[in-house]
Amino acid sequence: MIDTILQVNHAFYDAHEQRDLAGMAAVWEHSDRACCIHPGWPILRGWATIEESWRRIFTGSGRNQFIITNEAVQVLGDVAWVSLDENLVEGAATGTIAATNVFARVGPAWRMVLHQGSPVARH
Amino acid sequence: MIDTILQVNHAFYDAHEQRDLAGMAAVWEHSDRACCIHPGWPILRGWATIEESWRRIFTGSGRNQFIITNEAVQVLGDVAWVSLDENLVEGAATGTIAATNVFARVGPAWRMVLHQGSPVARH
Repeated sequence: MIDTILQVNHAFYDAHEQRDLAGMAAVWEHSDRACCIHPGWPILRGWATIEESWRRIFTGSGRNQFIITNEAVQVLGDVAWVSLDENLVEGAATGTIAATNVFARVGPAWRMVLHQGSPVARH
Repeated sequence: MIDTILQVNHAFYDAHEQRDLAGMAAVWEHSDRACCIHPGWPILRGWATIEESWRRIFTGSGRNQFIITNEAVQVLGDVAWVSLDENLVEGAATGTIAATNVFARVGPAWRMVLHQGSPVARH
């Protein structure tokens, strides 16, 4: 169970790193309840809106390579939530985004229903 | 059901506004899976660590008055997740924090198991 959730969670970051919109679409639930809060962005709701945001991000100039650390997975019934650190590696620039990913199981598949990332301030 | 979850969600903001640590303790699940990501902070896990963070915030100089808007509640089994805007009102300063709150039902009570807030960039 935990392994399955971690697998989907990593598929999300693989799709992000590879700018793979089809891969991203395979991870997310295509529903109105899907919710995404990119760092600094307002709340986006509904898959169509979220997909458009990834399209914009993937065609932008920034590269996003992550080292994922500090993952903790919780499961209760058909919902799982994961908190983790996204350690960005972009040339000389580095930084950490603290993230929450929520997954729902509908039928056999776990799909992402919420993603939020927020920058951790440097000290 | 939705009403109950909104009630607990509002109790969280009431406790925050009133700097009421006992009220905050009543909202949260006192467990290791409890997880809190304050704006700009690293991930905090476990109730003892989270409680200490609220103690620090409540004894700090900042005031936090919120107008909560844009709430959306999702429930699946014994888990509920809420996304919303925390509109801060601090004298002349205003700003919006996009937030996710996750609640778990254990027995009859819904308790907060995750809170994340991230500042929305101004345009």
